Amino acid sequence: MLKFNKETYLKNAKLTYETRDIIEKVADEISDEGYKNIFFISVGGSIAIMWPIQEILKQITDIPVYSEQAAEVVLTGHKQLSKDSIVIMASKSGDTKETLEAAKWCNKNGYRVVSLVGTPGAPLESLSKWAIPNKALNGVEFEYMQLFMLIFKLLANRNEFPNYEKFATQLEGLPKNLLEAKQKFDPIADEIAEKYHDEPYNIWVGDGEMWGEVYLFSMCILEEMQWVRTKSVSSSEFFHGTLELVEKGVPVFLVKGEGYRRKIDDRVERFCRQYTDKLVVIDTKDYELKGIDDEFRWILAPTISTALLVDRLARHYEKHTGHDLDIRRYYRQFDY
Amino acid sequence: MLKFNKETYLKNAKLTYETRDIIEKVADEISDEGYKNIFFISVGGSIAIMWPIQEILKQITDIPVYSEQAAEVVLTGHKQLSKDSIVIMASKSGDTKETLEAAKWCNKNGYRVVSLVGTPGAPLESLSKWAIPNKALNGVEFEYMQLFMLIFKLLANRNEFPNYEKFATQLEGLPKNLLEAKQKFDPIADEIAEKYHDEPYNIWVGDGEMWGEVYLFSMCILEEMQWVRTKSVSSSEFFHGTLELVEKGVPVFLVKGEGYRRKIDDRVERFCRQYTDKLVVIDTKDYELKGIDDEFRWILAPTISTALLVDRLARHYEKHTGHDLDIRRYYRQFDY
Repeated sequence: MLKFNKETYLKNAKLTYETRDIIEKVADEISDEGYKNIFFISVGGSIAIMWPIQEILKQITDIPVYSEQAAEVVLTGHKQLSKDSIVIMASKSGDTKETLEAAKWCNKNGYRVVSLVGTPGAPLESLSKWAIPNKALNGVEFEYMQLFMLIFKLLANRNEFPNYEKFATQLEGLPKNLLEAKQKFDPIADEIAEKYHDEPYNIWVGDGEMWGEVYLFSMCILEEMQWVRTKSVSSSEFFHGTLELVEKGVPVFLVKGEGYRRKIDDRVERFCRQYTDKLVVIDTKDYELKGIDDEFRWILAPTISTALLVDRLARHYEKHTGHDLDIRRYYRQFDY
Repeated sequence: MLKFNKETYLKNAKLTYETRDIIEKVADEISDEGYKNIFFISVGGSIAIMWPIQEILKQITDIPVYSEQAAEVVLTGHKQLSKDSIVIMASKSGDTKETLEAAKWCNKNGYRVVSLVGTPGAPLESLSKWAIPNKALNGVEFEYMQLFMLIFKLLANRNEFPNYEKFATQLEGLPKNLLEAKQKFDPIADEIAEKYHDEPYNIWVGDGEMWGEVYLFSMCILEEMQWVRTKSVSSSEFFHGTLELVEKGVPVFLVKGEGYRRKIDDRVERFCRQYTDKLVVIDTKDYELKGIDDEFRWILAPTISTALLVDRLARHYEKHTGHDLDIRRYYRQFDY
């Protein structure tokens, strides 16, 4: 596969899964201390992968869950955020400006922070009551795995996720499945990127636990790393404005999930099949998860799409646009 | 002013303000019955104007506030939504498919619905425990006024909005101010529309209590009614992807509010002034609210922007594109 090292990937998977003990210990400590609600606070791609979890949690826990932009919450506060809250943060670099400021602000106010930190010794680590090392070099799926273990262990401790032990054990086999998904998708990614890399405008659609994926790929990859123009919209909201822009020649990318909201994705698909000749459907159902129970598939669906998109499709866009994924005009290039 | 009737506008204002007694009675009844949390449930433009209120409420009430897409919540449910919740809905037509289904679903589950219904006798009315007539023919600002009276009277009853009486009394003078704002903005709207109506791609930015405004205008007006391609992004998230698309020749429309997050809008403005020659700033601070205390301005800012954008700027786009605002390809044209 293009720019992909299988051994590195499986090593990253191992390094991630090895943090299970640390994560469960953190979850147990948080459970012992008690908490009234959960706040996800981060920015960009890091908050985007927390949204699917927030969507999932709506359906399975009595604990209120909120998500806030790091740059905003420090200015406004939030009446539900208190010393009884648990704040979950993540930063791959561990020094994302807005997230760091929010972590400092949390500390000042006595809010307990648990964070996923991608860089050992990064500033976010020392600002967190609990820091979980995110050792994998890259791969958003590995961040999902850690967040899942943290969140579902917390829920298991409240008897809201009784199959946690089975879930966490089966999770070890997820990366191998994702590797196979990548292999299956790689030629498809090449075709998609070849056909669409030069489009002047692209609509990306997905819903619920897949919305963060659509948001992340269109903004943090296509816009930030490829300077490709996108509009992302949830499947439900697609029908309240954006649909009017669909016509022959307009590319629509639909990311279908496996939860209850899939019904709305189906409606988007039916509509777009009729009105554009450039519909691309990324359906996680097309990819097997061997050794993993079907009951967990809707939860794991975002890990499949992220493996396909953020890794494979991004690489093939890079190949066809000739635009290195690491090149930025502005972001982290200087102060602004 | 283009396609604007001053007398009709002031009559709509009067019809709206006359519902104050009804609204306060509803708020008092809800307060007497008691409630554990508030759910905003709607779609499209109707949910978009609830988001600013949700953002405002984060800062001033201990009551948890959630917002859900009508089409989604009926499929997934929500663990915080119960008979102890108050569900707030709105529909101008009173027969929006997704909202109606959600109202039916709420009824079936025993959730109490209070709704703003724009059409007397519309199906949503009979599905609501409390229906507030939204008598104004048009004008999103009038819907805001009704929602503000409902919400802040609820808060006043909890001693969380002690200046409610002054707020509601001063609200009567809002439409006259908005009328003057429209008059001041009308030639500016003409200039903006003339210059930008044919742009192939437009970035719209705003944050917090202005985000719903940015979302609504770009999706429900420019996309739905003008078939103009947009990307809308919050001011905080602008810096995590979309900024890379800014360069000379790319139009960026920034809607600045007056709350704490204005600091982030300022950052967007500083950035864009440097990197595009097509920055348009819509700043509610440029418009007076005579007879209204400054402490209420950050709350009322979305009513100013909506008066400028949804009414004035939309009309001038229509003039320059020659595309009637009422023409749709698909929406409500047939089943899909």
